[in-house]
Amino acid sequence: MADIGEFALIDRTVRGRVHPPSTLLGPGDDAAVVAAPDGRVVATTDMLMQDKHFRLDWSSPRDIGRKAIAQNGADVAAMGARCTGFLVALGCPPHLPVSVVDELNDGMWEEATRAGAAVVGGDVVGSTQLVISITALGDLGGRSPVLRSGAAAGDVLAVHGDLGRSAAGLALLAVGDGRFPDLTASHRVPQPDYESGPAAAVAGATSMADVSDGLAADLTHIAEASSVNVDIDSGSLVLSADLVDAADALNVDAMRWVLTGGEDHALVATFPAAATLPDGWRRIGRVTAGAGSVTVDGLPLEGAPGWTSF
Amino acid sequence: MADIGEFALIDRTVRGRVHPPSTLLGPGDDAAVVAAPDGRVVATTDMLMQDKHFRLDWSSPRDIGRKAIAQNGADVAAMGARCTGFLVALGCPPHLPVSVVDELNDGMWEEATRAGAAVVGGDVVGSTQLVISITALGDLGGRSPVLRSGAAAGDVLAVHGDLGRSAAGLALLAVGDGRFPDLTASHRVPQPDYESGPAAAVAGATSMADVSDGLAADLTHIAEASSVNVDIDSGSLVLSADLVDAADALNVDAMRWVLTGGEDHALVATFPAAATLPDGWRRIGRVTAGAGSVTVDGLPLEGAPGWTSF
Repeated sequence: MADIGEFALIDRTVRGRVHPPSTLLGPGDDAAVVAAPDGRVVATTDMLMQDKHFRLDWSSPRDIGRKAIAQNGADVAAMGARCTGFLVALGCPPHLPVSVVDELNDGMWEEATRAGAAVVGGDVVGSTQLVISITALGDLGGRSPVLRSGAAAGDVLAVHGDLGRSAAGLALLAVGDGRFPDLTASHRVPQPDYESGPAAAVAGATSMADVSDGLAADLTHIAEASSVNVDIDSGSLVLSADLVDAADALNVDAMRWVLTGGEDHALVATFPAAATLPDGWRRIGRVTAGAGSVTVDGLPLEGAPGWTSF
Repeated sequence: MADIGEFALIDRTVRGRVHPPSTLLGPGDDAAVVAAPDGRVVATTDMLMQDKHFRLDWSSPRDIGRKAIAQNGADVAAMGARCTGFLVALGCPPHLPVSVVDELNDGMWEEATRAGAAVVGGDVVGSTQLVISITALGDLGGRSPVLRSGAAAGDVLAVHGDLGRSAAGLALLAVGDGRFPDLTASHRVPQPDYESGPAAAVAGATSMADVSDGLAADLTHIAEASSVNVDIDSGSLVLSADLVDAADALNVDAMRWVLTGGEDHALVATFPAAATLPDGWRRIGRVTAGAGSVTVDGLPLEGAPGWTSF
């Protein structure tokens, strides 16, 4: 890192990358210019810190790069928007091998491309620990943003994407259990379906969030912002065989991973009862009148069987 | 920091802040929504690292916050755009007093307001050293972005804002010389005139950059991107009395600060010879045919009298 210098590093990062039409001006000037055809731009930022949000001994630099983009892109999708660009600021220890930065960048570009956008700008500075700060930009395509505050009593609660698999993968990595590679992969690289957010918006979603802190925690944000209660129907939460097997192997409750595990970056949303759920969305509960509580089968989470340690 | 937790900290940061009309949706959801009336959005990011880009013993948290916003806002102005929003990601050591974060945020809000925008979103995470990562968004108002690559032989070279004062302030702080408070203040809080960028664009500027790395270095970017030579007329660079006095006190050459000192966040631009320079812009040289060189009075910087150590 310190040997090749900032400008050479930036050159390695940007050279040969293919930008979509939404990148009107890419890296190399004082700022980038990104299309905002809607006349509004969705913007969100997350900072990831080495050994807190990722570990270089648990994940490859490429996977870390992918995940950093994915978690920001999922926030754009959770507004009902499509990604139009990412900005990346890196803090790099001077002795970090350049190959690590190259692979990080490759991962970020790969996931940005999967999200339909590009890395349009960035910065790189020296640091004591590896720091990755991402900003994602998005376009609403003329629709209203889907907020956390729009859920209404009578709405259907639905989810798109997996739940609990990232938490299971993290638990397996923590004890060095390599028997469930699909679960550890889910932790290393969540795979949000970026199109599921705009699809939910088109279908009339009244509220939406991405599941970053855990289903119960993120639903609490929706319940509180909307001044409603949200009830999860546990029977609708299908547990995959490997999740159950991994929970048995670690002597924990798989349902706890599903209800409280974060970082899957699934999307959770509420829809009017009469709405047709878009492809891939599945009903997991309902919205009732209330004041911000989340329940499972009508019971407080604490008292619900199986996940008493929540 | 660690005592009050992320959510309480975010609440302290966002509560009671007044947003301009360009903030369509402020903090609190998965992402913010910012007006982009032009149909394009200008975006730039910078990461600032404690003890590398700022020192808590040299600057107040409020000044550090102001400077972090200013250096990103200046990049937006250097495209000829107006700031529409800032996103702030903070990495905070667990034992950092909450008052430091409060003052940082106050400084960032103060400067964001001065730039005509607001802090629309952010993130806060634990860190071993204080890290500030800012993304600035801007609007071009229907104009083409002013790139580094548009300078042409025959153009006039002009600057808006002070040069060398931040470098002088840094040198004074390094030796603990408190006799020139205006210069140390210039280092702690650069004061870009955000309106000077759009004004230059309206006046027909052919290229523009903000002076972050030093006049000669940033002009080299313009000269190389435009495939021209840029010649600085040293007689046009008026040295203020305090800058000369400080240089004498430290036994250095004031002109060297002016030509090579960074972080003033003045704007430098080229204009067609027939253009009328907007208010506050002053001619400091000219563009000639060439291949990317920057000269002073026609001589290479190395050979120019007074700043041979460049």
